[in-house]
Parts: sequence; C-alpha cells; structure tokens
Amino acid sequence: MNKIKVLGISGSLRESSFNTALLKSSIEHSKKYLNIDIYDISRIPLYNHDIEKKGIPESVIKFKSAIASSDSLLFALPEYNSSVTGVLKNAIDWASRAESPLNGKPCAIMGASGGLSGTAGAQSHFRQIASSVNMICMNVPKFQMRRSKSLFDENNILTDQTTIEHLNKFLKAFEDWTLNCINKKN
Amino acid sequence: MNKIKVLGISGSLRESSFNTALLKSSIEHSKKYLNIDIYDISRIPLYNHDIEKKGIPESVIKFKSAIASSDSLLFALPEYNSSVTGVLKNAIDWASRAESPLNGKPCAIMGASGGLSGTAGAQSHFRQIASSVNMICMNVPKFQMRRSKSLFDENNILTDQTTIEHLNKFLKAFEDWTLNCINKKN
Repeated sequence: MNKIKVLGISGSLRESSFNTALLKSSIEHSKKYLNIDIYDISRIPLYNHDIEKKGIPESVIKFKSAIASSDSLLFALPEYNSSVTGVLKNAIDWASRAESPLNGKPCAIMGASGGLSGTAGAQSHFRQIASSVNMICMNVPKFQMRRSKSLFDENNILTDQTTIEHLNKFLKAFEDWTLNCINKKN
Repeated sequence: MNKIKVLGISGSLRESSFNTALLKSSIEHSKKYLNIDIYDISRIPLYNHDIEKKGIPESVIKFKSAIASSDSLLFALPEYNSSVTGVLKNAIDWASRAESPLNGKPCAIMGASGGLSGTAGAQSHFRQIASSVNMICMNVPKFQMRRSKSLFDENNILTDQTTIEHLNKFLKAFEDWTLNCINKKN
C-alpha cells in the first residue's frame, strides 16, 4: 500500500518556529509510513467576501487543492492569546468556503509552547473550529509540548527522547486514525 | 465632560457587512454621548514574528496607537466556523505584542449573524481571548443579533425597533462600563 499522504500545517510563520520544527521532526520520525508535506500558509490573504466574489485568490485555490489531494491534515498549533493564531484561523476561514475540502477530512493536532500551557487553550478552540467545518479530529493521544526550547537542539531538531517516544506513538495513532476514517468513507 | 472616545472594530472586511453596519448604527444611536470611530483592519498583515523583529509594520503601529488613544473598544464580531474571524484574531495578535495597548482596556462585544446563532460561539471564544490580553470586557447586556438581514433596510441601516431599543440600552451600559473602568484606573 502507498504511504498515507498528509498535509502538515503550522500556525506560525516564524522560520524557526518550534511548531514548524515539530512538523519537520514528524516527517523524520514517520517517513516509513507517512508522507508529510508541510504547506506554507503565508501567502493566503486576509479573508474578505468581496475579494472572494471577484475570484478566489490563486494562493487559496492552491491551498484548497493541496488539502483535497491529501488523506489527512496534521496541524501544529502555537497558542497566541489563549487561542489559535489569527494566521491559521484565516487560512481555515478561506478553506472552509464553498466546496470545502475540509469537510470530512481526518486531522490531528499537536502544539509546542515555550512555557507550561502546552497550547491547551489553542487546542480547545481548534477542536470547536474543526467540528464546525466537519474535520474528523483525533482525540487521543494528545500532543502538548511544554518548555519547547529545552527539547530541541540548536538546529531545531527534536532531541528529547521522552518526547520522541511520545511523538512516535502519536504519529502511529494518527496513521490508524486516518486509515480508519478513509476506510469508513470507501 | 468630553464624550467617551471609542474605537469600533469590525471582524469582517466585507463592505456591506452587517457587523460593520451595526457599528455604523451604533455611531448614529449614541452620538450624544459616545464618539465612535470605526477602524479598518484590512491593512494589517499576517502576524509573523520574523517581520516584527525587523520592524513593526506601519499599519500595526497606527492600529496600536488608535487603540492607545481611545477610552474603550467596541468589537462587532461575525462568527466564522464557531469562532472569531481569523482577520480579527490576527489584528489582536499583533496589537497584543510588546507594550500592548489592549492591556487594561475596557471593551464590549456585539455580533450579527445571518442565521440563528447570534454569534454566540464567536463571543465565547472572544471572551477567552480578551481575558488573556487583559481587556476588561463588559459581560451584560449581551448583544447577539439573529437573522440580521431582516433587521436592516436596503441601505444597511438598522430599522427594527426592538433591536434599536436593545442597542440603545447596550450602548448606555457600555458608556457606564467605560466610565467605571476609567475611574478605577485614575
């Protein structure tokens, strides 16, 4: 069987973001069974219905097409002000419009925080948003990373063994989750 | 005494947005005691810490300055996918950074929906975001407008008398709320 095709989406645009680094580590640790591509959402403009009516921007068409052609979505969620980032929410707002490729799409969420929150607030808001657009979001295991700086090396590579073990469990569970969701659909 | 200076912020960029129209109606119905200016957040770029480090964009400096020089903030919140719009959250994410003018700022929230939700989901998420950035958000009265299209005329002017009465109560309460918050600070 072909490897599962996953679109990885980071809610941070910062180049050395721990959340983006977590997606890169996920690629590394799951390459035998998942094919994760990271999608850059920095070119998606602010949502405006007037712009949408004139014609959906090329960057949004590409984003929706990348979602549609993936088996599942892996979100890395920074927490800004107790919620998801505006940047990520804006991308979801665009993608959720007519002929939404999010509808019925399996997904999982992970998050890295600098402090102790583990992005729990962002994950809680995201689950409500996900259910609203009918993404099928994996409940467990959770992945909420605290004190992220201490868990990566100077090249932003995940080096903490306990975290790597949990990441492996999480990614295997995500493979199962995706396969179950896909099989139910077929 | 001078009228209270309010910055009105709509979460929708659509020109004929019911939420923006609600702010315009608020100006009309409170002009004897509130001085509401509507701020256009369409020029605020997607938040990116790398951009911020190079220099805060002019549009963000202007936005933060407008917040700082207002007595309170009046948010009109559309609900997209059970939450606030990405566009609005992104503006808050920028404003909440170093020397946040949101810190301690009184605010109130209103929302107009096309259907029956009354933007309750967006308001719930917003209250958590507001507490996170330490805005002092008025709890009651609530303002959650349902079936908005039927309450405005063809020029987007609020014509429904029951709604206008509630809006007047809401805006008077918001004046009191702002005055109480300001007095506590002084």
